[in-house]
Amino acid sequence: MCVSKDAKVAVVMGSDSDLSVMKSCIRILRDFEIDCEVMVCSAHRTPEKAADFAKNAHIDGVDVIIAAAGKAAHLAGVLAAHTPVPVIGVPIKSSTMDGLDSLLSTVQMPSGIPVATVAIDGAENAALLAVQMLSIAYHDLRHKMLAYKRSLAEKVEKKNEDLQKKLAEI
Amino acid sequence: MCVSKDAKVAVVMGSDSDLSVMKSCIRILRDFEIDCEVMVCSAHRTPEKAADFAKNAHIDGVDVIIAAAGKAAHLAGVLAAHTPVPVIGVPIKSSTMDGLDSLLSTVQMPSGIPVATVAIDGAENAALLAVQMLSIAYHDLRHKMLAYKRSLAEKVEKKNEDLQKKLAEI
Amino acid sequence: MCVSKDAKVAVVMGSDSDLSVMKSCIRILRDFEIDCEVMVCSAHRTPEKAADFAKNAHIDGVDVIIAAAGKAAHLAGVLAAHTPVPVIGVPIKSSTMDGLDSLLSTVQMPSGIPVATVAIDGAENAALLAVQMLSIAYHDLRHKMLAYKRSLAEKVEKKNEDLQKKLAEI
Amino acid sequence: MCVSKDAKVAVVMGSDSDLSVMKSCIRILRDFEIDCEVMVCSAHRTPEKAADFAKNAHIDGVDVIIAAAGKAAHLAGVLAAHTPVPVIGVPIKSSTMDGLDSLLSTVQMPSGIPVATVAIDGAENAALLAVQMLSIAYHDLRHKMLAYKRSLAEKVEKKNEDLQKKLAEI
Amino acid sequence: MCVSKDAKVAVVMGSDSDLSVMKSCIRILRDFEIDCEVMVCSAHRTPEKAADFAKNAHIDGVDVIIAAAGKAAHLAGVLAAHTPVPVIGVPIKSSTMDGLDSLLSTVQMPSGIPVATVAIDGAENAALLAVQMLSIAYHDLRHKMLAYKRSLAEKVEKKNEDLQKKLAEI
Amino acid sequence: MCVSKDAKVAVVMGSDSDLSVMKSCIRILRDFEIDCEVMVCSAHRTPEKAADFAKNAHIDGVDVIIAAAGKAAHLAGVLAAHTPVPVIGVPIKSSTMDGLDSLLSTVQMPSGIPVATVAIDGAENAALLAVQMLSIAYHDLRHKMLAYKRSLAEKVEKKNEDLQKKLAEI
Amino acid sequence: MCVSKDAKVAVVMGSDSDLSVMKSCIRILRDFEIDCEVMVCSAHRTPEKAADFAKNAHIDGVDVIIAAAGKAAHLAGVLAAHTPVPVIGVPIKSSTMDGLDSLLSTVQMPSGIPVATVAIDGAENAALLAVQMLSIAYHDLRHKMLAYKRSLAEKVEKKNEDLQKKLAEI
Amino acid sequence: MCVSKDAKVAVVMGSDSDLSVMKSCIRILRDFEIDCEVMVCSAHRTPEKAADFAKNAHIDGVDVIIAAAGKAAHLAGVLAAHTPVPVIGVPIKSSTMDGLDSLLSTVQMPSGIPVATVAIDGAENAALLAVQMLSIAYHDLRHKMLAYKRSLAEKVEKKNEDLQKKLAEI
Repeated sequence: MCVSKDAKVAVVMGSDSDLSVMKSCIRILRDFEIDCEVMVCSAHRTPEKAADFAKNAHIDGVDVIIAAAGKAAHLAGVLAAHTPVPVIGVPIKSSTMDGLDSLLSTVQMPSGIPVATVAIDGAENAALLAVQMLSIAYHDLRHKMLAYKRSLAEKVEKKNEDLQKKLAEI
Repeated sequence: MCVSKDAKVAVVMGSDSDLSVMKSCIRILRDFEIDCEVMVCSAHRTPEKAADFAKNAHIDGVDVIIAAAGKAAHLAGVLAAHTPVPVIGVPIKSSTMDGLDSLLSTVQMPSGIPVATVAIDGAENAALLAVQMLSIAYHDLRHKMLAYKRSLAEKVEKKNEDLQKKLAEI
Repeated sequence: MCVSKDAKVAVVMGSDSDLSVMKSCIRILRDFEIDCEVMVCSAHRTPEKAADFAKNAHIDGVDVIIAAAGKAAHLAGVLAAHTPVPVIGVPIKSSTMDGLDSLLSTVQMPSGIPVATVAIDGAENAALLAVQMLSIAYHDLRHKMLAYKRSLAEKVEKKNEDLQKKLAEI
Repeated sequence: MCVSKDAKVAVVMGSDSDLSVMKSCIRILRDFEIDCEVMVCSAHRTPEKAADFAKNAHIDGVDVIIAAAGKAAHLAGVLAAHTPVPVIGVPIKSSTMDGLDSLLSTVQMPSGIPVATVAIDGAENAALLAVQMLSIAYHDLRHKMLAYKRSLAEKVEKKNEDLQKKLAEI
Repeated sequence: MCVSKDAKVAVVMGSDSDLSVMKSCIRILRDFEIDCEVMVCSAHRTPEKAADFAKNAHIDGVDVIIAAAGKAAHLAGVLAAHTPVPVIGVPIKSSTMDGLDSLLSTVQMPSGIPVATVAIDGAENAALLAVQMLSIAYHDLRHKMLAYKRSLAEKVEKKNEDLQKKLAEI
Repeated sequence: MCVSKDAKVAVVMGSDSDLSVMKSCIRILRDFEIDCEVMVCSAHRTPEKAADFAKNAHIDGVDVIIAAAGKAAHLAGVLAAHTPVPVIGVPIKSSTMDGLDSLLSTVQMPSGIPVATVAIDGAENAALLAVQMLSIAYHDLRHKMLAYKRSLAEKVEKKNEDLQKKLAEI
Repeated sequence: MCVSKDAKVAVVMGSDSDLSVMKSCIRILRDFEIDCEVMVCSAHRTPEKAADFAKNAHIDGVDVIIAAAGKAAHLAGVLAAHTPVPVIGVPIKSSTMDGLDSLLSTVQMPSGIPVATVAIDGAENAALLAVQMLSIAYHDLRHKMLAYKRSLAEKVEKKNEDLQKKLAEI
Repeated sequence: MCVSKDAKVAVVMGSDSDLSVMKSCIRILRDFEIDCEVMVCSAHRTPEKAADFAKNAHIDGVDVIIAAAGKAAHLAGVLAAHTPVPVIGVPIKSSTMDGLDSLLSTVQMPSGIPVATVAIDGAENAALLAVQMLSIAYHDLRHKMLAYKRSLAEKVEKKNEDLQKKLAEI
């Protein structure tokens, strides 16, 4: 049976400025103890590196690619063009258009080449989606994911309790 | 080694009117010889059935859920709330708002509960994304996916050849 | 004849961070002396609690539910799926998309399951709408509402008088 | 105990062309056996009639007002300005802007004067929301609403069965 | 021949908070020496005052009405419904939707009741448009407007000269 | 006292294809017996003619200019740049973007050069707005406008009566 | 002196279905007697061919590339990433989102890699922009372009004359 | 053979406030040692200067015009109307609408008069696009552009190396 220490996720950012958003993605992957390669690689400024990386990803043991980019966010789509590995796209909000350009450039892929798109700046969900994909093969991750979901519910319960105390002060 | 005849995908539609779009999704899953359960189930009209299905999906051997819905498209998110299985969301274009409402309702999920969103009416890509996810575990699908990508390229080449003939007539 | 001290409104928030917006909703309900239960409950992180709460709301004497959520704001719709009680949705502006995602996810409900949607961050109007709904049954609230409307007009008149003084300084 | 044959809903349309959309609203109110007054009345072309109607609505025994209008859809807001009765707004899709103008003009009401907004062209939901509001006072409607919700679920189940038959033909 | 000291413009604001934007409108009207009445008057909170003002505007010698409002900005349309006088609408940017709601609520008026809409927060242009309208009757304003346009061109020329100096420092 | 037979409106269209929309504008101006010059003149294809026309408009006795254009609709703004006469802009819906491009290009004018913008395809309202502007100088038009508004109200009343008959058939 | 018979433009389409829009582009290039290579080549389905073509374009004597694509339209950006030759992007309207996705995916390029974007479905303007770019080097094209602009103006004049005749019939 | 010291680019800004964005455009042109004329010139406030400049641009040796403007950004289109020289449009983000108005006003040009539009606030890309256009005629610029693209790739590589160091600290 496969175990998740053999799993591998690559996190690719179009610009180093995306790191502030993507930190939480990397942290969650580490929390799930998933081996994770992180790199800056641009669809437009380093197109050959991007293509080479994507073409070899499945050979190099990468199970899932997470690609974060803003504006005319082509990175996820360009990587997906070259790889049979599932690609998760994180549209990054930029200084104009409030992320709508990034979202549409990432999600509206033509038939044949899907990108699994999460919310604008949805770095944490990209990591969790990668874990869910990996859990199809790596069954220990399924249990961790179920535990994670329970912890989410517990946090909400805790916040609800805190809220009840705050209500007196409103 | 896992083989894809053990793989299982559930395709859930919020309304039977979504079938016209989702047909191509079902066909691609069948082309990849993936076992596929299809049902109509509404987040709003049959919420208990939706919750029960999702809670048991991983126990029932479902590897990936594909959920298609329009307007305030809550189906994918509601299923994702109840399952550790990856959920692919297909925003369906409805009679108003050109699918923007479906897209935002599906993709803008809060942190903790991801939905892998494809393009508006992106039924084929939902199937292909499911295949890519499954190929992490079921290695024979990886080869089929690589072959599929080659066939896409060949079709483009064929269309390019046809185009050259048409050019004389413009 | 029914009196409003028997009326009950539940205010449900998808996240405790929504409290800063929803405070003014709670204050108005208190000003109208309406019994009001407040809780954090997420459609995605605590889906079972949300369903249980909604299924029992009318049995527990809840007359109106107010649900506030942001991004892919499914909370109001998910509660409405489980209850015959009217549900008021407050779309909360989040860090991206300026609240458009929350608005469309809340208001564009499919036929069969309405959500009474107010403006983005429209917490006060959610409370006033609840009062108007309650006043169908609790007639003393009708008089309070008419008085409230008069006070709104008086405030505008007062502001107009203040404006006349400021005009000299422009 | 109040019974719903005393309940009264007014359905106001900004233009007679809105009737094609609003027919289904009227039919649902009749299905619930609710007395329903229907009129064409424009916030812009017959502003005095609109104001007079709204000012007297609660005196004339109107429990809920449903207002349908398109483009710069001021009707619901203008009626709400003059009445303590809850006003449900139906944004009507017009020939440009796909209903976004109608939606924003209806839902984005300033603090103090709420409009309970349903989906663009959401005529059926306007009727159901009115029934839910009325059921706070008229308890027999609560049971009808619960039955209605069960019938929605049954229809989905029926459609699911039909779907299973169609799947062989795809 | 009419002279502009007989001209009269009314500037109506839906909220006193609009004054910060509308100050520049009032200043320009004063610069053109046009008699100008300013008031806070809400389509929703003081609907009767709004109607009364508008119905009597042409009798009271008001030549042009300028109406500023935000969100579901009904003020200009509601005034236009009651008056034969031209109404200029200024959509005010509010805390959500970046002014798109105000713009569409103001400009998308149904056939029969026009509102002369200027840009979002376009207070100065509202004043200048009023002057242009008045100059049809008050011919001295035409000359002032031509002089104003020349002064605009001169300011651009001056800025161009300043720019040339700054270029060395870039 | 000025009489409206001396009034003159110029209707300028960026393309002859705009005539289908602008016909109703011309008809209303004729109904009000206003002298009206109509021409095709493009800000981009015949920029000199556009400038020459606008520069001389007030000398040639034109009181109001109505300019209709689609897509990047510069026509109204370009004419306004050259004339002290009020310019009414009609954004024409084109084959893409549903008129939003035309609307924003027409209404979002920079400070100093207003365009009085009406709804997308709002040809009738452009004519009525011109009449209202002219009525500042030409007092007989005021009475016609008041009569026109009464006729609008009567038409709504007539439609309401027709509606009552149709209701039995729903 | 360079002459335009040495000029060469490549027209690349992401799908053969784009030909119906791009025909007019090809016709204009032929009218200007510019050598023009046309091909179907997809950024996602034939990424290597796209990269190879773009890398060699300047070596193969291509002066300008015109790239047309819809939805998440990456083609123009991907070609621009690989070539020093100016790339003109034509956003193609697809079945959803009215071309907004194509426009933003094409125009919102990150700093370093420009795409010269024309209007949605702006095939003719892509050809004319290419001619303008080429005319920097090929001076005979400048004269043809000036003649073309004069012909545009003449066509508008002709249409204006036709309009005058039609006016009697309105 | 042409050399780039004979090349000339004009950078035109609708307002001096655009300089803060356009500085980086001017710097890149200087880095490529291209002669560059910079001016403030408004389509609306100085329309005659704009027309005169554009009409004579090709006679005055201007090879490319870069025009930056915000809101209803007519400048690029107005210049393009008067010149056979390619015009690059830079939509400037203003205080409302997040640059969407500027983008649509610049890019959605009608057939016959193209504007080569870059991203909102895309000043650097406007300069680089100008260099690419010039490199058709001035071959030394092609080599500089290839070197520039290599430097972009090297910067990404450098940032990637820096990132690897930062990863330990996350």
